[in-house]
Amino acid sequence: MEPGDAARLGPGRAARALPPRLLLLPLLPLLLGRGLRAAASASSGAAAEDSSAMEELATEKEAEESHRQDSVSLLTFILLLTLTILTIWLFKHRRVRFLHETGLAMIYGLIVGVILRYGTPASSGHDKSLSCTQEDRAFSTLLVNVSGKFFEYTLKGEISPGKINSVEQNDMLRKVTFDPEVFFNILLPPIIFHAGYSLKKRHFFRNLGSILAYAFLGTAVSCFIIGNLMYGVARLMRTVGQLSDKFYYTDCLFFGAIISATDPVTVLAIFNELHADVDLYALLFGESVLNDAVAIVLSSSIVAYQPAGLNTHAFDAAAFFKSVGIFLGIFSGSFTMGAVTGVVTALVTKFTKLHCFPLLETALFFLMSWSTFLLAEACGFTGVVAVLFCGITQAHYTYNNLSVESRSRTKQLFEVLHFLAENFIFSYMGLALFTFQKHVFSPVFIIGAFVAIFLGRAAHIYPLSFFLNLGRRHKIGWNFQHMMMFSGLRGAMAFALAIRDTASYARQMMFTTTLLIVFFTVWIIGGGTTPMLSWLNIRVGVDPDQDPPPNNDSFQVLQGDGPGSARGNRTKQESAWLFRLWYSFDHNYLKPILTHSGPPLTTTLPAWCGLLARCLTSPQVYDNQEPLREEDSDFILTEGDLTLTYGDSTVTANGSSGSHTASTSLEGSRRTKSSSEEVLDRALGIGDQPVSSRGTRLVFPLEESADSPPACGDGAAAGVVRTAASPRVV
Amino acid sequence: MEPGDAARLGPGRAARALPPRLLLLPLLPLLLGRGLRAAASASSGAAAEDSSAMEELATEKEAEESHRQDSVSLLTFILLLTLTILTIWLFKHRRVRFLHETGLAMIYGLIVGVILRYGTPASSGHDKSLSCTQEDRAFSTLLVNVSGKFFEYTLKGEISPGKINSVEQNDMLRKVTFDPEVFFNILLPPIIFHAGYSLKKRHFFRNLGSILAYAFLGTAVSCFIIGNLMYGVARLMRTVGQLSDKFYYTDCLFFGAIISATDPVTVLAIFNELHADVDLYALLFGESVLNDAVAIVLSSSIVAYQPAGLNTHAFDAAAFFKSVGIFLGIFSGSFTMGAVTGVVTALVTKFTKLHCFPLLETALFFLMSWSTFLLAEACGFTGVVAVLFCGITQAHYTYNNLSVESRSRTKQLFEVLHFLAENFIFSYMGLALFTFQKHVFSPVFIIGAFVAIFLGRAAHIYPLSFFLNLGRRHKIGWNFQHMMMFSGLRGAMAFALAIRDTASYARQMMFTTTLLIVFFTVWIIGGGTTPMLSWLNIRVGVDPDQDPPPNNDSFQVLQGDGPGSARGNRTKQESAWLFRLWYSFDHNYLKPILTHSGPPLTTTLPAWCGLLARCLTSPQVYDNQEPLREEDSDFILTEGDLTLTYGDSTVTANGSSGSHTASTSLEGSRRTKSSSEEVLDRALGIGDQPVSSRGTRLVFPLEESADSPPACGDGAAAGVVRTAASPRVV
Repeated sequence: MEPGDAARLGPGRAARALPPRLLLLPLLPLLLGRGLRAAASASSGAAAEDSSAMEELATEKEAEESHRQDSVSLLTFILLLTLTILTIWLFKHRRVRFLHETGLAMIYGLIVGVILRYGTPASSGHDKSLSCTQEDRAFSTLLVNVSGKFFEYTLKGEISPGKINSVEQNDMLRKVTFDPEVFFNILLPPIIFHAGYSLKKRHFFRNLGSILAYAFLGTAVSCFIIGNLMYGVARLMRTVGQLSDKFYYTDCLFFGAIISATDPVTVLAIFNELHADVDLYALLFGESVLNDAVAIVLSSSIVAYQPAGLNTHAFDAAAFFKSVGIFLGIFSGSFTMGAVTGVVTALVTKFTKLHCFPLLETALFFLMSWSTFLLAEACGFTGVVAVLFCGITQAHYTYNNLSVESRSRTKQLFEVLHFLAENFIFSYMGLALFTFQKHVFSPVFIIGAFVAIFLGRAAHIYPLSFFLNLGRRHKIGWNFQHMMMFSGLRGAMAFALAIRDTASYARQMMFTTTLLIVFFTVWIIGGGTTPMLSWLNIRVGVDPDQDPPPNNDSFQVLQGDGPGSARGNRTKQESAWLFRLWYSFDHNYLKPILTHSGPPLTTTLPAWCGLLARCLTSPQVYDNQEPLREEDSDFILTEGDLTLTYGDSTVTANGSSGSHTASTSLEGSRRTKSSSEEVLDRALGIGDQPVSSRGTRLVFPLEESADSPPACGDGAAAGVVRTAASPRVV
Repeated sequence: MEPGDAARLGPGRAARALPPRLLLLPLLPLLLGRGLRAAASASSGAAAEDSSAMEELATEKEAEESHRQDSVSLLTFILLLTLTILTIWLFKHRRVRFLHETGLAMIYGLIVGVILRYGTPASSGHDKSLSCTQEDRAFSTLLVNVSGKFFEYTLKGEISPGKINSVEQNDMLRKVTFDPEVFFNILLPPIIFHAGYSLKKRHFFRNLGSILAYAFLGTAVSCFIIGNLMYGVARLMRTVGQLSDKFYYTDCLFFGAIISATDPVTVLAIFNELHADVDLYALLFGESVLNDAVAIVLSSSIVAYQPAGLNTHAFDAAAFFKSVGIFLGIFSGSFTMGAVTGVVTALVTKFTKLHCFPLLETALFFLMSWSTFLLAEACGFTGVVAVLFCGITQAHYTYNNLSVESRSRTKQLFEVLHFLAENFIFSYMGLALFTFQKHVFSPVFIIGAFVAIFLGRAAHIYPLSFFLNLGRRHKIGWNFQHMMMFSGLRGAMAFALAIRDTASYARQMMFTTTLLIVFFTVWIIGGGTTPMLSWLNIRVGVDPDQDPPPNNDSFQVLQGDGPGSARGNRTKQESAWLFRLWYSFDHNYLKPILTHSGPPLTTTLPAWCGLLARCLTSPQVYDNQEPLREEDSDFILTEGDLTLTYGDSTVTANGSSGSHTASTSLEGSRRTKSSSEEVLDRALGIGDQPVSSRGTRLVFPLEESADSPPACGDGAAAGVVRTAASPRVV
């Protein structure tokens, strides 16, 4: 709005000449949902020009004022974030670790919230509202006839009867209050996508069984336990008369679901900084990423639990199974959506030479990833969950097809988006403690909730770890278990789920409690991470590419009957069969189809698929003129010693590679040599005689162990399939 | 929305359990303003739980449906963009240049528009609306009492009486119709910022005088001529009875203003690709960037022209001067806002060690640049204009303080945003031709407009070039003038200005005409660029760092009385005094204050500012322990031979540098050596005797001429101020 706007609001044709400015920055309805108000694009047709100009003038002025206020409140958030960034820098600069950026964002948010709450005068509440009685239901659109002109209104939402007079009470508080769906549709997707896209794949896949167990079983157990404990608390509160409204068992379960979404962003940041144990990192990160997805779907399944009949709060098996079905349906549907979009992107980037134009490639990648979200929402699945799996798929396949520049571009793009969104949410949380107008603080409930989340986490970490340890060779030690127990922070996801519905008394109480839990866990637990790490004796300064000490080698998930059979079933895991299946499928079919790497499909597919295989296989694989472009160094099976049978083809390695391997391993002093080598050395019994079995031998690329980048030029020797870090087939 | 939502909409407590989902992706109100409708967060309080569940059920279902539709329509746009990207790739791959990506985006938009218009059935228009009579003015917020519950509605805008029945006629068309302010507040800022940030500074500043003349005078002339011609057309139309409604002189001038915003994106893309003449590029690009800003402010000043008295359409000197004042006020205010935020960012990045954390740095840069927009809007200036000058300031100062990674990150981030926003706008234009529901096609007006924009452009390019050539040594040749004449494409800015107000008949006609002008110019002119370039004999394949041939050396804007005086006033330009002033101020004070480069302030500021100067000067300049980080190789005065007097300090260069210069220049065969050297060689008469004058000598860094990066280690010699590309003071 220019000063000129004021000037042109003279009588007469002023109103006509005005562009129909909706008074909002269009970004603002999005960011400040509650601030969405009074779009007064009241430029009349020329016919009504001279009448009622004054009314329009007033509306225009109001519009302009509102636009300015919107700008100011968004500016508040931006300055808050700027301040956070500068303070984070100071903290990082001084190596202060007791307070993470998210904790800081919350503190600044709190301060601004206090100022807004107690510092700004309640605005005059000028007469903008008008009551209008309607008999039937609430329509979504309303046409209002004002002196012969029609205005269109849209439904904002219901106002609880007590709030009618306070609707306009404090404009500023309303302005800084978001539409809760902003979190789900704008801020969470980049955060979740980034989590999926930046998953350290190797360690993630190595621990996939445990991660899935923690994420699915753990979240379910935690949800159930917290729900039951909170139901007990609620009954207690009713007994002592502290509960002023209804609180059902499903409400308690819902609370259990939303509060089970852990978000150890603070802990993980410190892990990253200190290079703490990579497997613990993978366990924590993997669990937190997946249990967000589980918690979303679980909470909507619980909401969907609708017992039939009169006693709507009794247990109903049919409704229960329906809820379970809904859970499975939404989860698998969202998973499929995400995976399919990822696969499509991989195919597009593989079969076009888009990598010559990094800008186009990055834009395409961004759009495709975004479309996952929309597609899932359009089909009735959960966009956030779809985006997570899309991120994982993109990282696993598409990433390999991207040009080097696009790889860093996409990583950096989503890193910035993630950073901004995350700090935005956390500073909003701080703000919400004071500006949210429907808080219900119930000390009993809050204390109960703290106890419940503690017990809930204990009840899934320790027993699950016990059972997982039965099957794992590399046990999850007590210190790891304690650290996982300790890292049960709650964050953005719990908050976003809680703020999504704050209509009823129970939900308001849950929201307030969730907010306090997030504050407490982020500040206290976040601050205690470094002491806890040293107290629990968890090793730091670990090279992420290094394996655990040789006696803990049970992380080798996969074990074929080939070269590794010398070690017998030492490395056998309960879930190994699943992974062997998945891995061979992925390596033999998916990778070659979707990326430029892997064995040629012509060798892995049956003969009758010859034509198809020839079409789908990347020319690079055939010609061996260009080294394979996979630089997916985190790939799971760089560890594993897996027998790969490519039909009948036997590829022979050059002996020098083998001897080089041996000599490197004999040197022994290099602690940073690639883990794949170590595994291989052990598997081969440290020797340079290639062990052959069923015509397939494994030799790992050696350039990985040197500090120089892989010299790809000499890989064109007879049929040697070379990738940067995946096993080379001999 | 998960399938679960449907399930939980059973009777009884269904409604209570529902989260208050506003049915919109919050992104969608933003992107699909007209689609913003009926936010039915109708979850009632627990008290009203059992009543009226059915109504809420209906509203919820509607909400869910609307959310899905929003997702689908956004998905449509994303798929459109994806398709555009893939086709662009194909075109680039095959080196097809006759159709630019924006033209392509428009074609796809057109196709989708046709499908939406004629392919989708008009939706049933179910009974969502209700008329409600109100006596007074239209309020921005409406409270509606529905069977005892209160719902809040917000004003969407006025519906023209004829449209009442068609409000709900075609949901899909409404969904894909944007809130016009989206363009101004979401899509244009990244485009304009990117333009400012990526300005090729050296060539831009060299031609600044001409660019400013074209942008300010040219746009004003073009606006006035087009306005008058169109007024003639309008009178003609009235005479022949083709004008069905009012059309004032100010409307014509307004049209002149919006259509004067050129956007030769297509031409510039081809220039870039073919490495066409850099000065022509700078002239075209600079003009188009600045005249966007001028056109915005001009159009709002014209709207603000409100003659007093009864005859509101006669000329009124007071109102006219008020408009001029408004123009100057908004323009300078927005300029100041942009420059101030840029300067603040430069100071922050200079005085913190934020460059150790590129993520934080990039995030800060992004937030500060965005806050410019909000700040300007909040203060009543024009955000888009502020963002342009912020971009230029950021490029000129902040960019030098950023870490290498942040430089590429910020460039790439805004490049992607710019790319997406631009193609989004152009594909929306294509769509709008069929989906916009208020088109007024008037053949006479359209033909008149084409003639007018042709004449308007001719009337400012040729006379202005003539006058500029009087002062320029390096004349703007006829071929350049014809090319500039030819490159008068209209694009995103004209469209955004035109769609901002489509309330009146005149404005609707203007909008339709603008749309057609954009189509025509982008397709025809864009397609004809390559033939035109060769026809006009404009050289291509120019190294941007290379100077024009020596006989055209009048681009040397600045000329001191020092070393360059040997060449006399050959390089003197009429505007030289202005630039000499600005340059010495910028180089002696602003650069040292805002960046790590330039001479120490202690030498440039008067002695009594000693303490301040010491505080503000970067320690790098003092200690010379770290080489200066300025890598601003586009900096204007790398060309110039300017006398810099740093107080009394005389810094001596090591002789080897000088001789190296000479030897390089004597080799002569290197066509790609840096232009600064060439200038210097000429200035120094090719010799290694440093020419001294008033204690200051210029030697240019030599590492630039070698292909290796500047070896910064040996620059610590006594007081040698070294920058990568700016003149080194001897």
